[in-house]
Amino acid sequence: MPKSSLTLVLGGARSGKSRFAEGLVTARPAPWLYIATAQAFDDEMRDRITDHRARRTDGWETVEEPLEIAAVLGAVPGGRPVLVDCLTLWLSNVLLAGHDAETEAARLAATLARPRGHWVVVANEVGLGIVPENPLARRFRDAAGWLNQRVAATADRVVLTVAGIPVEVK
Amino acid sequence: MPKSSLTLVLGGARSGKSRFAEGLVTARPAPWLYIATAQAFDDEMRDRITDHRARRTDGWETVEEPLEIAAVLGAVPGGRPVLVDCLTLWLSNVLLAGHDAETEAARLAATLARPRGHWVVVANEVGLGIVPENPLARRFRDAAGWLNQRVAATADRVVLTVAGIPVEVK
Amino acid sequence: MPKSSLTLVLGGARSGKSRFAEGLVTARPAPWLYIATAQAFDDEMRDRITDHRARRTDGWETVEEPLEIAAVLGAVPGGRPVLVDCLTLWLSNVLLAGHDAETEAARLAATLARPRGHWVVVANEVGLGIVPENPLARRFRDAAGWLNQRVAATADRVVLTVAGIPVEVK
Repeated sequence: MPKSSLTLVLGGARSGKSRFAEGLVTARPAPWLYIATAQAFDDEMRDRITDHRARRTDGWETVEEPLEIAAVLGAVPGGRPVLVDCLTLWLSNVLLAGHDAETEAARLAATLARPRGHWVVVANEVGLGIVPENPLARRFRDAAGWLNQRVAATADRVVLTVAGIPVEVK
Repeated sequence: MPKSSLTLVLGGARSGKSRFAEGLVTARPAPWLYIATAQAFDDEMRDRITDHRARRTDGWETVEEPLEIAAVLGAVPGGRPVLVDCLTLWLSNVLLAGHDAETEAARLAATLARPRGHWVVVANEVGLGIVPENPLARRFRDAAGWLNQRVAATADRVVLTVAGIPVEVK
Repeated sequence: MPKSSLTLVLGGARSGKSRFAEGLVTARPAPWLYIATAQAFDDEMRDRITDHRARRTDGWETVEEPLEIAAVLGAVPGGRPVLVDCLTLWLSNVLLAGHDAETEAARLAATLARPRGHWVVVANEVGLGIVPENPLARRFRDAAGWLNQRVAATADRVVLTVAGIPVEVK
């Protein structure tokens, strides 16, 4: 069995992607590192964060980092199982912060291409609806699609969750 | 062969999910029960209902029930093949009626977890586009995702229709 | 090996569908015919077209045809590998031009049902998000779903690209 791997868990809204990804990480020996990219801007987001936290018990160390997840990953001890949840919120944070999404995505993808332990990253699939009328939403959708492609290209395993069921993609 | 089963047919808009689900039901001996959740609020909906009805010939008994499908299912004779089309419209009806979606979804999921015949339920996958700007649409999307997960968890078979082609998910 | 075939490559926005489809075509002996349906209405579209063109090198002949792709396909020499990119933009062009989408889609589907060489067509899957509030977007979504079903029904192979990875559907 290899000592390191990258798994990308893709899914739609409420498709069970976080739960499935957590199960992959906790199947490894603790301690596990959870890198949370969500920011509690409003009540809706606060509820989601609380909900996700409630599922994580002993054995988890949590780092809340909306932007510098490449840096955090760079500092993770080798061999530590890591969950990043999620890339799509991170991308949204990058765009909101006015950073260059292209550059940041390339940097993150390069870091994820060299996992130093069993790393699992969660991302949303957002490109299977009608073209959004809002130009910013279109740009975001494109950037999210590119990021998913880049990460999937180097991932050892890609899973799409459909109604909570994992479907193997790669 | 088991005497009862639950099949969930998931799909996007115009993905052929109803047609595929109907085929699963009519592969069993008639009579078949069709539980229709659509309400003819407008011409668009009336056209869809007419279209669906035109495909169903002899052998089908139809119950049009926008809300109380758990009660209808509770009264179905054992061994009767049933088609419920669809869960997502039902959820929309529940929310529009001001009922508690969480409670109703839990009740329906519990009923579907104990099929008393070969039951097939159709649902829309609505979570693979960009996050909707409308907060009600976000709540609906979340509720639909949860419902699909709950039903898929106990289903014997889950199929995703893609351009009319069934893809086995579970 | 058969002398002609139809492959449908479906995918969301930025899912790698064009790139994958191009690879299928260039795996055959040149010359290859590219039928481009995109029209450069704005900068965003112009950028996408430039981007796609940059990937196509020697061996490609390009026909830019927003509407009459059935006619173009009818005139293609037998045995020539063809890429049509994409059906969904073509459908949008048909609707914008005020043509009857139903009639045009039936005509195109009939042409694609009798490929005279190895033909690859690209289409967007747009039906897996929330129901659009805009009635025109709903009509477009329905028409796109129907078209995809029709083409998939006669296709020898249907592939869904997810984050750049091809998933076999048929």
